[in-house]
Amino acid sequence: MSVPQYNSCEDKSATFTGWASTGTAHLKPWSYYPRPLGPKDVEIEITHGGCCGSDIHTITSGWGELKLGPVIAGHEIIGKVAMAGPESGHQVGDIVGAGGLIDACGHCVECNRGQEQLCGQRAFVFNDTFKDGRGGITQGGFADRIRVNGDFVYKVPANISPAEAAPLFCAGLTTYAPLRDHGAGPDKTLGVIGIGGLGHMAIQWAAAMKCKEVVAISTSDRKREEAFKLGATKFVNSKSHEEFKAAAMSLDIVLCTSIDKNADWGEILSLVANGGKFIMLAMPESPMVIPPAALIFRQVSIVGSMIGGRGTTTEMLEFASKHNVRPWIKKMPMLDANAAIKHMMEGGPRYRVVMETEAGTKM
Amino acid sequence: MSVPQYNSCEDKSATFTGWASTGTAHLKPWSYYPRPLGPKDVEIEITHGGCCGSDIHTITSGWGELKLGPVIAGHEIIGKVAMAGPESGHQVGDIVGAGGLIDACGHCVECNRGQEQLCGQRAFVFNDTFKDGRGGITQGGFADRIRVNGDFVYKVPANISPAEAAPLFCAGLTTYAPLRDHGAGPDKTLGVIGIGGLGHMAIQWAAAMKCKEVVAISTSDRKREEAFKLGATKFVNSKSHEEFKAAAMSLDIVLCTSIDKNADWGEILSLVANGGKFIMLAMPESPMVIPPAALIFRQVSIVGSMIGGRGTTTEMLEFASKHNVRPWIKKMPMLDANAAIKHMMEGGPRYRVVMETEAGTKM
Repeated sequence: MSVPQYNSCEDKSATFTGWASTGTAHLKPWSYYPRPLGPKDVEIEITHGGCCGSDIHTITSGWGELKLGPVIAGHEIIGKVAMAGPESGHQVGDIVGAGGLIDACGHCVECNRGQEQLCGQRAFVFNDTFKDGRGGITQGGFADRIRVNGDFVYKVPANISPAEAAPLFCAGLTTYAPLRDHGAGPDKTLGVIGIGGLGHMAIQWAAAMKCKEVVAISTSDRKREEAFKLGATKFVNSKSHEEFKAAAMSLDIVLCTSIDKNADWGEILSLVANGGKFIMLAMPESPMVIPPAALIFRQVSIVGSMIGGRGTTTEMLEFASKHNVRPWIKKMPMLDANAAIKHMMEGGPRYRVVMETEAGTKM
Repeated sequence: MSVPQYNSCEDKSATFTGWASTGTAHLKPWSYYPRPLGPKDVEIEITHGGCCGSDIHTITSGWGELKLGPVIAGHEIIGKVAMAGPESGHQVGDIVGAGGLIDACGHCVECNRGQEQLCGQRAFVFNDTFKDGRGGITQGGFADRIRVNGDFVYKVPANISPAEAAPLFCAGLTTYAPLRDHGAGPDKTLGVIGIGGLGHMAIQWAAAMKCKEVVAISTSDRKREEAFKLGATKFVNSKSHEEFKAAAMSLDIVLCTSIDKNADWGEILSLVANGGKFIMLAMPESPMVIPPAALIFRQVSIVGSMIGGRGTTTEMLEFASKHNVRPWIKKMPMLDANAAIKHMMEGGPRYRVVMETEAGTKM
């Protein structure tokens, strides 16, 4: 594979090594030169990396060909600050986290209203290019180290363990942000489709926000009991027509964290209350086939939501710390990254695999 | 065609005659017995009836088989009160209008919050059944008379002519309600897809609401000049890739009044600004095929909206009266209803055909 021209901004005094994909789920060790540490940048010695569905979609080319060369995925990143630029706002030794968004312009309309994830100059943590004029492509957190704009690095609250903190940076934020932005609270009935990495966080947030009902919706009855432990007040097995029908039109907000590609969208949207919102967090690899009547006759909305901005990330970490919201994780060594990915693709984890580096084992 | 059992509630002392469909666009004169005039009901001697796309979808069976027997369409109804129940709140002789919604329970959550069109007991003006316990099926306004719950009958403001008032009751309300509910105003850039019965009203409302920009989007360059007369500040020919691209991500709210069944939804949704709303008013006969990325990466919403409630109807009439918003109409005799329907199906009217009854000609 030829080295893309984007990768012209390199600090050849440093070499970072991670698990890279060239288009399939089989990851191989691969090294790259990071960007030079800018005055605002932080270098993180990675201790933990959560494994998310987006990693899988990317490394398997499910969302499209990898056009920028090998990709080191991983966007739930925890580690220790190893180097801190003078304007980074961070201290060497701090335990910090970073997520899917690692750069934005900082002064556009979106940045100004705290929706940095919508900035036209944004950079995702992997399989993306920097747009700040310095060049370079991004590489993620299934690696020993990473360099990131300090504005997108967050101190981990002291009462959250590093391994448990990792999934907050995508699964946590992705589910917290829409609940906050769309008014989840005691006057709202909340549904969560899919009880996995995202879903098990969504249930916990919604319970902590004291939603009137928190309805867990899953194809798997095996998750019924665990859903209640997470804070659900009801469980709907979506394969049971009876249970599904009984829940019709009952949910003010539905967070969709997972969806079958052959989903019957008319049936799924029937869960939403009149005037309610169906929020897409999952990004299936095939289009949604929506009967217009399902939206129009009951004034239902389908809303896209993607991670969250800096302010929301900070707020989410504080909320997790205060309300004791923690992901349920299974630690696996990053040394054997392919085993972790395989476990995840088989739907094994309850509910998040967090890979631990050697540095992580010493914490 | 057998008479359906629903039609058990009949006042055999009265006979109403209209233009009925049995599943095709060819209408035939047909008579029915109305429901007995209840204490809240009003009998309207119809003078004018606007022709809407929903009438066409229904009478051609485009939205499905007509299961309740012959259907008299027509849901932009103006006329003179001929009889008024003692609790109807109306006076014989008043010039009034009625639209797509002619009944609702009046005490559910939806009715209480002024969204009567979402009431589970709602009755549409045709091709529907009454749910108020009295029985009967509904028949619309392409007729000489109609009986309607007085709560869903509205006095026409004195400065609006009866013929011009008719389209306000669907085209007007359907476009006014979402603009109001989704915050159209000086801080919003507004797009209208399709310049027809609905679209030409939407442009006028948006201009009167002083939206920052009012962008008319049409496949037909012939409408460019008229769009500006209606109040548009920009025109985008959706067949021009250049014009379309120039408008990308520029619209906070898009009202979709018309959509091609082979629409490229990724391209269409590219018009919506980050965090913006694409509001579906048109109900195409085939599903919407939505690429999830078009919603997620820019947090775009697709929102269904349908007519409006009682309060919104009253407000819309006052707004039209005050801001001089009027549909552009072409009057045709109801005696020749099929000619009017044909004219409409050929896309002829600029922008609304209003059929006039014999009573109407005498006003």
